Amino acid sequence: MIFPIFFTFVLLLSSSHASVQDFCVADYKAPDGPAGYSCKKPAKVTVNDFVYSGLGIAGNTTNIIKAAVIPAFAAQFPGVNGLGISLARLDLAPGGVIPFHTHPGASELLLVVEGTIIAGFVASDNTPYLKTLKKGDIMVFPQGLLHFQVNGGGTPALAFPSFSSPSPGLQILDFALFKNDLATELIAQTTFLDAAQIKKLKGVLGGTN
Amino acid sequence: MIFPIFFTFVLLLSSSHASVQDFCVADYKAPDGPAGYSCKKPAKVTVNDFVYSGLGIAGNTTNIIKAAVIPAFAAQFPGVNGLGISLARLDLAPGGVIPFHTHPGASELLLVVEGTIIAGFVASDNTPYLKTLKKGDIMVFPQGLLHFQVNGGGTPALAFPSFSSPSPGLQILDFALFKNDLATELIAQTTFLDAAQIKKLKGVLGGTN
Amino acid sequence: MIFPIFFTFVLLLSSSHASVQDFCVADYKAPDGPAGYSCKKPAKVTVNDFVYSGLGIAGNTTNIIKAAVIPAFAAQFPGVNGLGISLARLDLAPGGVIPFHTHPGASELLLVVEGTIIAGFVASDNTPYLKTLKKGDIMVFPQGLLHFQVNGGGTPALAFPSFSSPSPGLQILDFALFKNDLATELIAQTTFLDAAQIKKLKGVLGGTN
Amino acid sequence: MIFPIFFTFVLLLSSSHASVQDFCVADYKAPDGPAGYSCKKPAKVTVNDFVYSGLGIAGNTTNIIKAAVIPAFAAQFPGVNGLGISLARLDLAPGGVIPFHTHPGASELLLVVEGTIIAGFVASDNTPYLKTLKKGDIMVFPQGLLHFQVNGGGTPALAFPSFSSPSPGLQILDFALFKNDLATELIAQTTFLDAAQIKKLKGVLGGTN
Amino acid sequence: MIFPIFFTFVLLLSSSHASVQDFCVADYKAPDGPAGYSCKKPAKVTVNDFVYSGLGIAGNTTNIIKAAVIPAFAAQFPGVNGLGISLARLDLAPGGVIPFHTHPGASELLLVVEGTIIAGFVASDNTPYLKTLKKGDIMVFPQGLLHFQVNGGGTPALAFPSFSSPSPGLQILDFALFKNDLATELIAQTTFLDAAQIKKLKGVLGGTN
Amino acid sequence: MIFPIFFTFVLLLSSSHASVQDFCVADYKAPDGPAGYSCKKPAKVTVNDFVYSGLGIAGNTTNIIKAAVIPAFAAQFPGVNGLGISLARLDLAPGGVIPFHTHPGASELLLVVEGTIIAGFVASDNTPYLKTLKKGDIMVFPQGLLHFQVNGGGTPALAFPSFSSPSPGLQILDFALFKNDLATELIAQTTFLDAAQIKKLKGVLGGTN
Repeated sequence: MIFPIFFTFVLLLSSSHASVQDFCVADYKAPDGPAGYSCKKPAKVTVNDFVYSGLGIAGNTTNIIKAAVIPAFAAQFPGVNGLGISLARLDLAPGGVIPFHTHPGASELLLVVEGTIIAGFVASDNTPYLKTLKKGDIMVFPQGLLHFQVNGGGTPALAFPSFSSPSPGLQILDFALFKNDLATELIAQTTFLDAAQIKKLKGVLGGTN
Repeated sequence: MIFPIFFTFVLLLSSSHASVQDFCVADYKAPDGPAGYSCKKPAKVTVNDFVYSGLGIAGNTTNIIKAAVIPAFAAQFPGVNGLGISLARLDLAPGGVIPFHTHPGASELLLVVEGTIIAGFVASDNTPYLKTLKKGDIMVFPQGLLHFQVNGGGTPALAFPSFSSPSPGLQILDFALFKNDLATELIAQTTFLDAAQIKKLKGVLGGTN
Repeated sequence: MIFPIFFTFVLLLSSSHASVQDFCVADYKAPDGPAGYSCKKPAKVTVNDFVYSGLGIAGNTTNIIKAAVIPAFAAQFPGVNGLGISLARLDLAPGGVIPFHTHPGASELLLVVEGTIIAGFVASDNTPYLKTLKKGDIMVFPQGLLHFQVNGGGTPALAFPSFSSPSPGLQILDFALFKNDLATELIAQTTFLDAAQIKKLKGVLGGTN
Repeated sequence: MIFPIFFTFVLLLSSSHASVQDFCVADYKAPDGPAGYSCKKPAKVTVNDFVYSGLGIAGNTTNIIKAAVIPAFAAQFPGVNGLGISLARLDLAPGGVIPFHTHPGASELLLVVEGTIIAGFVASDNTPYLKTLKKGDIMVFPQGLLHFQVNGGGTPALAFPSFSSPSPGLQILDFALFKNDLATELIAQTTFLDAAQIKKLKGVLGGTN
Repeated sequence: MIFPIFFTFVLLLSSSHASVQDFCVADYKAPDGPAGYSCKKPAKVTVNDFVYSGLGIAGNTTNIIKAAVIPAFAAQFPGVNGLGISLARLDLAPGGVIPFHTHPGASELLLVVEGTIIAGFVASDNTPYLKTLKKGDIMVFPQGLLHFQVNGGGTPALAFPSFSSPSPGLQILDFALFKNDLATELIAQTTFLDAAQIKKLKGVLGGTN
Repeated sequence: MIFPIFFTFVLLLSSSHASVQDFCVADYKAPDGPAGYSCKKPAKVTVNDFVYSGLGIAGNTTNIIKAAVIPAFAAQFPGVNGLGISLARLDLAPGGVIPFHTHPGASELLLVVEGTIIAGFVASDNTPYLKTLKKGDIMVFPQGLLHFQVNGGGTPALAFPSFSSPSPGLQILDFALFKNDLATELIAQTTFLDAAQIKKLKGVLGGTN
């Protein structure tokens, strides 16, 4: 009344060097590579590797942009490593804004759960695609294109962007330009912005030179 | 004070046979291929191709499983075609259940927005990974593995699964086995279920033979 | 009469940190990642890494399903690591059956070498695709879909399934449901099977709860 | 006693522009693209698209190389289109040989079913990997590398190579060099072969110039 | 003295619905999809599809940025369709500059052929990577990150960027922000730039609102 | 006047186990895998990892083929690891030739910078595609196909091939056949070349047997 064949079979699959390969939970202590983090040993994997609870509490929006983003990427959430997907939480207080940014490694699909959000992206041909999103609406931002989100109402907005990669990356335009030591003159030359404008934003964001 | 070079450049990129290639909004009337639907002509694309509003209203859960799923896959939401991501809405009334199923073409990342959900998947080595998820929790189900969701509380639950493909597919176990004309004897032989059990579920689900 | 340029050239390619990169024979002692196992040092690779002889002898089919499967996946056969392909051997005694299962990470192409096999898969729309295969016939099972194989004659059948991944995975439906400690009540709720049926199969397969 | 939710759900998935996306059976009359052939309309797909019977009969080996190859690639076998796998049949009479060739688009996994085959490939560092394969042995040839198969015994040999692509391609060295109108002088210059040798093989294979 | 087997074999491969599949030269008149353009019929392909001569002449740099870019992407150069690579020509007169931009779909590898170029990119953590490149130097810009090139000497500079995609895309920061009808107020809100600065650049680039 | 949210956010992304994931500069001392080398720790990455200066000086062409190739693949140029692109330098003195070869892992896009080059590839159907390339011309060689380059004029030629992979591989036909210990008889059997021809080239290239 037993299945000897399967015992044999499973034995082979669970031999010393086997990896289950259904998933590859990130082992942050081993080397990472172009495809992601190394895999945790199967015996050490638990259900908690596949669950992330850090998105349940609103981020602190008492700041100048009145917004907060909490990522659940492979670097924070080991279970998504190698699985082609990740998520984040986005809180926008009234007047809140997530300034222009890109995700170099993923497309984004934004889900509005509370409030109203004005979202937009700009295509390579410079056409802007702009929409006011209500609760339950979703909008997709194709990989690598500049986009933004702004609270479009008088109440807090909550949204959850999902991404087509466990490590989508995030390049915030203002930070890339002004929150480092790039020379003002070089920035002026490569953005056509006035030096005074550049220096002003460097001051706000903590950049130098 | 103008940029003639860019005019030249953009001219080249917008020549008659150019495709913007930032995105490939689905053209449902042209042939589809292994990578997805054909692309709509750029001139016909509008922001509404990138926005989907069908997930804003709860699905009807007054049915035997007390649950409803509304997909926003490439077949419904043309903007995600080719972008490696899609989304769905999941409503679970008290006692509601999404029975065992797989997505042959994608990993799933479930976000609980209201209520409590008991979710689980089974790995290839038959280990079950089971967790009670609260509002704000997320759980990942690796590609192709059997998983389920059950309302874990006395109130309605709302969740949004995102997927690592615009066309994740969905194979519901009971439907695959019982909602068609596969012979009862063959099902019995390949599942070890009793013929009476099979016939009973065929009756419920509308299968024959 | 020599080719100094090539000597220089080859020198560069064989410098201390070079990897041949034609292949990546699995090193089972180093970490694995989402793309597979780490590569063995080129100097340690031999032809035997690319050859596997474990499929030459029939598996033992004197068991309840009268069938045997022997895998040559990356976990057993180091040479296929990273190369997008693997193979297995399938023996079916008269009356033998490989019950419903999926490969979460690969499509399968079954080659019948001896005897007759009734094979089938079920698509996402619940349509079954069923065929009696004779010696020399091949049948493809698309990635992630439920499928089975049954000996269709009175003589032993031999087949070789090949897979579109070095680690296709294997989830056997009955094992996933019944060969673990998932609560009978939860299984009943998520499969619509009767509790008695579940307990019966748990008993046969060694499951608990 | 019915499942209204699923009816609703399936209705959505089977709407007019839906594609099942479990598979993409080749439609040879529509355009093909970099990812393969266009998909046949789901309603026209039958089980016969997933089954190929052309490999059941031995190829005719009464020719100069005493060998025959019959492909079941996407161009012959519509069901493998887009699924990352394909197969072929290889017959080698005593003394038969498949001369040096490459598959530009796939790795190959050779399964010996009858007889003995001497097989080999050469790596980028010019190391040859050579082995005499017996019935049941498998050997992998990494993508794009030169390899060959020779009957290693006094009896007919039968083998089935599987490939990691539905369209692996096949470039036979002698044919690429000699079975076309490339100028003898140019071939001599780019292969270091003697003009007489080139002209001799052009004569045998039907090349000109 | 002939090879009948090969004749048979080639016959199969060249049957009416066969595609050579070594390449997929773009057919600009057929539909395109997520993986690229449809393939030209093999019989219509000539060597000229694989050769592009448009990069041999310097672009016109008598413009405000003293620079010119000429692309050889899949939209201009049909032979690269589906092959994962493309190229462009970059001319920088003394004082010339290619302002900050991204390629949403590819990494770039810049080769300096004449003159001196100051090039840089900014990583997601806002670290700038900056280098003065001389003739023969190459520099890689990872996919999707903001980067720029500036003539670093008193003589014309010539460079050839190659890309890891046949359709890398190009989003020029100033154009995305200022060369369209995005409202000045919205741009101010999402970039922190002063309204006056925005209006000034809109004026230069032909934007409105 | 500060952005506390971003500080929080960046803090998360730069936690101890974070990897920037914009790039994966090769760490030659850690294990490599099918997707490439392990990533250098972000803190150790400098701009010099992204710049390679080894292609600025002509290779030594005073050899029998009057040609030189200098690669900047991932094994030499750590910055391209995982980025899907690489480059090389090709010098051809008058009369110089790069004999028939393949790149098993990449398509090649050749840019002629000085002089004239006769280049060609042969497709799977044995059709040669041949062209005389002038300064500024580019030609693409699809992945895995046999191709060659010959100086087509009386002056030195300089070209830069770029590749669609950081590790394209390189298999030189003559070397694969004659620069190792493959038995002359076996080569004769699998190439149809005369034994005398084989022995002659083995002698030139340093092969044995």
